[in-house]
Amino acid sequence: MALIVQKFGGTSVGSIERIEAVADLVVKTKQQGHQVVVVLSAMSGETNRLLALAKQIDKRPSARELDVLLTAGEQVSISLLAMAIIKRGHSAVSLLADQVNIRTDNMFGKARIEDVAATRLKHELEHNRIAIIAGFQGRDIEGNITTLGRGGTDTSAVEIAGAINADECQIYTDVDGVYTTDPRIEPNARRMNYVTFEEMLEMASLGAKVLHIRSVEAAGKYNLPLRVLSSFNPDQGTLISFEEAGVQTNIVSGIAFNRDESLIYVNNITKGTTQLSKIVKIFAEHGIEIDMISQVNHNFEKIDYAFTVHTNDYEQALEILNSDERQIINKGAVKGDSHVAKVSAVGVGMKSHSGVASLFFEALAQENIDVILVSTSEIKISVLIDEKYLELAVRALHKVFLTENE
Amino acid sequence: MALIVQKFGGTSVGSIERIEAVADLVVKTKQQGHQVVVVLSAMSGETNRLLALAKQIDKRPSARELDVLLTAGEQVSISLLAMAIIKRGHSAVSLLADQVNIRTDNMFGKARIEDVAATRLKHELEHNRIAIIAGFQGRDIEGNITTLGRGGTDTSAVEIAGAINADECQIYTDVDGVYTTDPRIEPNARRMNYVTFEEMLEMASLGAKVLHIRSVEAAGKYNLPLRVLSSFNPDQGTLISFEEAGVQTNIVSGIAFNRDESLIYVNNITKGTTQLSKIVKIFAEHGIEIDMISQVNHNFEKIDYAFTVHTNDYEQALEILNSDERQIINKGAVKGDSHVAKVSAVGVGMKSHSGVASLFFEALAQENIDVILVSTSEIKISVLIDEKYLELAVRALHKVFLTENE
Repeated sequence: MALIVQKFGGTSVGSIERIEAVADLVVKTKQQGHQVVVVLSAMSGETNRLLALAKQIDKRPSARELDVLLTAGEQVSISLLAMAIIKRGHSAVSLLADQVNIRTDNMFGKARIEDVAATRLKHELEHNRIAIIAGFQGRDIEGNITTLGRGGTDTSAVEIAGAINADECQIYTDVDGVYTTDPRIEPNARRMNYVTFEEMLEMASLGAKVLHIRSVEAAGKYNLPLRVLSSFNPDQGTLISFEEAGVQTNIVSGIAFNRDESLIYVNNITKGTTQLSKIVKIFAEHGIEIDMISQVNHNFEKIDYAFTVHTNDYEQALEILNSDERQIINKGAVKGDSHVAKVSAVGVGMKSHSGVASLFFEALAQENIDVILVSTSEIKISVLIDEKYLELAVRALHKVFLTENE
Repeated sequence: MALIVQKFGGTSVGSIERIEAVADLVVKTKQQGHQVVVVLSAMSGETNRLLALAKQIDKRPSARELDVLLTAGEQVSISLLAMAIIKRGHSAVSLLADQVNIRTDNMFGKARIEDVAATRLKHELEHNRIAIIAGFQGRDIEGNITTLGRGGTDTSAVEIAGAINADECQIYTDVDGVYTTDPRIEPNARRMNYVTFEEMLEMASLGAKVLHIRSVEAAGKYNLPLRVLSSFNPDQGTLISFEEAGVQTNIVSGIAFNRDESLIYVNNITKGTTQLSKIVKIFAEHGIEIDMISQVNHNFEKIDYAFTVHTNDYEQALEILNSDERQIINKGAVKGDSHVAKVSAVGVGMKSHSGVASLFFEALAQENIDVILVSTSEIKISVLIDEKYLELAVRALHKVFLTENE
């Protein structure tokens, strides 16, 4: 008997028929002798419907009240699933954030979970009930409703699984696992059976959209095996775990990419050790994060910087650099380019294999793709390229590193 | 400065436009210098939409889970109204049942409020915020979500107003007050400016649908002035209070009626002091309430009973009396009639005026309306008549007792 947490996203509970199918799947797991905790998103479309109501009243509605509004969506899905499971003759109980004490900070709309009390959940499991918990939501220390932001339900599921020391957290979604790259770009992309946490963290931060990075981080914190699988056609999916045994020996596990970055150049600014920290600080004050950074020293007096920000922050970043605040970074030429994309190869195998970088750049060179910026870690190589070459680069890298030799 | 609780029903918050109008109304009250607590129903149609989803899964869904589902409706309306008030530059905070500690028993779907803690609400009011509370819902002692059943939001409003010792509880609805009778039947029906609690209790229990009897009872318990008024066209409405000063001196205040009663005869049963209690007991065991009762002794051995039950219970009541259980009330002839209606004249003036009954029966006799059963209290006379004469009886009684002499 194992203790399993199963998370289902919005499309998995998007209609009564889908909810009935999820009920079958949950009951089947229970009948296999496991204890089951379910974490749900709102029915697909519901969050957008509620958001549209709010926008009709106020284009920038109160953040606290928006969280009260949006959490109504999960309340609907959890109670409907509980009804469907009870109809199948099993005990089930739906639970909201306050009922299982999911405590967060008070950052409405993007709160972080600080604590999940296991007491109530353990009680329900001991009484042989299937517990169905509203994902995406929490309560701050004053009892206000909060939401966790993007990917919130995945994070809820992982934090809950961690709190009750679950054996596995299963993330059911509309794809059947994590792929070596996006199959819409590279038809030869393969589902991976295993990925390590390190790889998944890199893939998530590099733009692979299957799992939100925060939920992968949380799973790593608890050393909790995480499995991504399809609710439409569940099989083994992809297991994300610390155990490297059984992991395929590919040097590179996947090719990730991200179209949401924009490039900014600050050229010919006066050399000085505090220049970069000044730029980073101004951006941080405006809530803008810098991703890739490159620095070139022209001569003894001048430096060029190139860095990337999220495309949503691009216009504001240019404004800041061109405004009065720019004085503090002296006078340099500022220019930018939003038509860029980042492509990355990720794999724990890189740690012990040399020559990966060489293969990587050779593959791009053969396609005449210019590299604008480079960034590396122990287990990944990322490059920024012209956005129009993105698909070509993904296919070239996939071919070099991930073509199966059979 | 007064402390005012304002309750708005589903049609009053049925669209974004209506919610904006309610926000205007609430803000206006605040600007007049009052402290305001708002209690809301779900947007009209929403509860039925959610109920339909549940019925798709299970015709008789889990009562606990149905309450979790349905309370999502109020969560939407309170957060939207809070946004609309905040947009108008006032502080507002939406609050769920658990956040203001509305504790109920655990009768899902028809819970009763046991306690409302005033602490949180007082705190919000002291900080000059408009508190917007989800009506219809509560939490039992274990923290499970409960709903209060029909007329639940009125009851929430009154119990909250009682707990914080409000000066007045205003029930905004789609009619502009309590009328002397239904204007759809008697075009001369007038809005009453004042009604006493006693009268309103009788009117509510006799079928006047403006206020649920439970909320009137609760207001009486707290000696809380209650006002019914229109959210579409608010003016003074009807004030329901203990103070009789200023109450118009009509002997009869209103003509109430109810089409939902059915008549049952049990004839020629053997006399015995326990017969009636046996019938009442069997019905109580099946959850059937008896309203009017009449007993006629034919001779020394036989009795006839006539009584009324809610039409929803009529078929079941006949079945019970014709079944084996009937043995315990001996063998009598059972028959029934569901085409009956109850008409009542209500007024505290009856206490001190004789001759009301005489006028009442004379008015019916002049229209050749047969009276089947009679029931009276200090402040009302009710008769059961053939349903087809209902409108005629209402108009005749309204003419005798409520025609204004100008």
